[in-house]
Amino acid sequence: MNTGRLEAFTDGVVAIIITIMVLELRVPQGGDLRDLASSAPVLLAYLLSFVNVGLYWNNHHHMLHATERIDGRVLWANLFLLFWLSLVPFVIRWLDDSGFAPGATAAYGIVLGLASVGYALTERSIIACNGPDSPVAQAIGSDWKGVGSIALYVVAVPLAYVSRWFALVLYIVVILLWLVPDRRIVRALNRSKA
Amino acid sequence: MNTGRLEAFTDGVVAIIITIMVLELRVPQGGDLRDLASSAPVLLAYLLSFVNVGLYWNNHHHMLHATERIDGRVLWANLFLLFWLSLVPFVIRWLDDSGFAPGATAAYGIVLGLASVGYALTERSIIACNGPDSPVAQAIGSDWKGVGSIALYVVAVPLAYVSRWFALVLYIVVILLWLVPDRRIVRALNRSKA
Amino acid sequence: MNTGRLEAFTDGVVAIIITIMVLELRVPQGGDLRDLASSAPVLLAYLLSFVNVGLYWNNHHHMLHATERIDGRVLWANLFLLFWLSLVPFVIRWLDDSGFAPGATAAYGIVLGLASVGYALTERSIIACNGPDSPVAQAIGSDWKGVGSIALYVVAVPLAYVSRWFALVLYIVVILLWLVPDRRIVRALNRSKA
Amino acid sequence: MNTGRLEAFTDGVVAIIITIMVLELRVPQGGDLRDLASSAPVLLAYLLSFVNVGLYWNNHHHMLHATERIDGRVLWANLFLLFWLSLVPFVIRWLDDSGFAPGATAAYGIVLGLASVGYALTERSIIACNGPDSPVAQAIGSDWKGVGSIALYVVAVPLAYVSRWFALVLYIVVILLWLVPDRRIVRALNRSKA
Repeated sequence: MNTGRLEAFTDGVVAIIITIMVLELRVPQGGDLRDLASSAPVLLAYLLSFVNVGLYWNNHHHMLHATERIDGRVLWANLFLLFWLSLVPFVIRWLDDSGFAPGATAAYGIVLGLASVGYALTERSIIACNGPDSPVAQAIGSDWKGVGSIALYVVAVPLAYVSRWFALVLYIVVILLWLVPDRRIVRALNRSKA
Repeated sequence: MNTGRLEAFTDGVVAIIITIMVLELRVPQGGDLRDLASSAPVLLAYLLSFVNVGLYWNNHHHMLHATERIDGRVLWANLFLLFWLSLVPFVIRWLDDSGFAPGATAAYGIVLGLASVGYALTERSIIACNGPDSPVAQAIGSDWKGVGSIALYVVAVPLAYVSRWFALVLYIVVILLWLVPDRRIVRALNRSKA
Repeated sequence: MNTGRLEAFTDGVVAIIITIMVLELRVPQGGDLRDLASSAPVLLAYLLSFVNVGLYWNNHHHMLHATERIDGRVLWANLFLLFWLSLVPFVIRWLDDSGFAPGATAAYGIVLGLASVGYALTERSIIACNGPDSPVAQAIGSDWKGVGSIALYVVAVPLAYVSRWFALVLYIVVILLWLVPDRRIVRALNRSKA
Repeated sequence: MNTGRLEAFTDGVVAIIITIMVLELRVPQGGDLRDLASSAPVLLAYLLSFVNVGLYWNNHHHMLHATERIDGRVLWANLFLLFWLSLVPFVIRWLDDSGFAPGATAAYGIVLGLASVGYALTERSIIACNGPDSPVAQAIGSDWKGVGSIALYVVAVPLAYVSRWFALVLYIVVILLWLVPDRRIVRALNRSKA
């Protein structure tokens, strides 16, 4: 089974998720730019989610580029990932409707956290299918970022009940973790391990 | 006529169906995770439908992979399948709005049942176009699962008026039928036939 | 300029149009299958539109399959076609909200009629780009169906103000015109011309 | 890293943006064609946006056709472009709900202006990745249209507060700038520079 159609299907679903999120945004009541202030939180949540889903697409792109073979397990792990990503528009709307209530803020972390788990499962099943010495296994490496993201979401979700700002900051930390170019960090970590 | 563009179009439509279903989900009234309880039934219907549509995509993927030729009849049978799949978001919304009323629960089975018929028609037209000895005809085989699914939907739809739980359980049985790896079952059945 | 990306973009837009139409359908008020009766007109409009858009996709598929070259004019004629097709979900919603009022019924014909014009313009620009002796020019032929469809819409739109049923019947006649296999008709017409 | 999947992803997102805009259009209250008059402004905004997004797709198509290599910076500049394009349906809805209020009219220019910036950034990062003598760098050339569009949006946005008609006219001028075939203009400009 080759990777072409899986890539095409994933691209399709991710492109749709990233685009239909905009349908969930409520427009301001008034007609002035100042009225956008009331929409600022949900627009930031939209930006955050857009970058998040964009990162998933980007990383998925690189991972499948190095993948030679897939099997049924990869298809289902990938569908698990897409399922949780597909709920992002739902939690954005809930965040907006509830005024960033603690429960909705926690739900946002749960959905993104389970998407991270889905991504990790897809990685594992691809490595299991291609072997630990395959190019894709070496490209994925130790994946401390993936494990770290899941850990940060596990911490952030209960913190949403203490203060939703703690949770939101941790959600942004996860994104920065992936955005910041990290070759030097990885090399430093490897050196400290050696 | 080759299969490339049919695959791409089907992937596109299925990717959109699986993703826009989320637009039909109503967010909870309150802002607490407990308030998700009221959304639990529709979230389960969403999960059920996501897996169902994912299964169709997966099986369609394998079937077209083995297909060499298609004709106008295949295109129309495939469009019939896509038509019924496209109504899944509609019945999910109806299920939610009506609180899983018997009629909406029956409609869910009718839509999925007619999608099964569409899938069977697509199989038949592909076999008719490629010949009974073609690789795709052998890959499809006796398709007892397809026939069994249609039969289960025929039973489940009237049962929705007795109890919607009967119907929902049967809808889940159809999914399990497709999820459980079945090589051993098929072999056992073949042996009992021999 | 080759046809690959134009086909992919058109497939994408058509796949989305055909799928998001379902978001425009209002679910029945009640929870019984009988309550679907109130949704019957709009479901029929949905079916009509699904077949119509499916026919456009099918014919576009065949036309571009035979096309060797495209230029800027083809891109814009194709975008004109997609623009009018993209308004189909809008007129379906209007039909539903207005209870199939004459104006909305006429608007449905105007949108489909201008999509027909867009298709004819795409054909002309492809022939202009590939030459009158190119395979695609011969595959398109005299296109009496395209001209006939536009003529039927021109008749149907004002008739919607006399009786919306007249208009709806003519809209269905256009679909049947395209659905019925017509090789014999074409050959008969050619013979009568000779 | 090759351009195939970036093209496919961009095509997907743009196809979805151009199509879901229709979901933001409110249908007329009445059932007569005259009642469309009240929808005329938003239908014109829809047409304007459809042509605008179509132009982006068309130009993106040509630019990536000439591109040999992309890197991480190109991916992110492209995602920046897609982010602002994805907000077009949001501002169309706001324009409609606010009756073309100055703030919403300005927001429309801000979103399109930042999309122009995103397009320019994508161009720059592609040239940086392929070198100033690469075919794509020569195909892009001096890009006076891109710079001119950004300048026009910078002028139009504050003018929306003087009169929304000034702003709307400038938005249309940007479109005409791109629609009008310009080889002669470019050549004339080049000659006047020489």
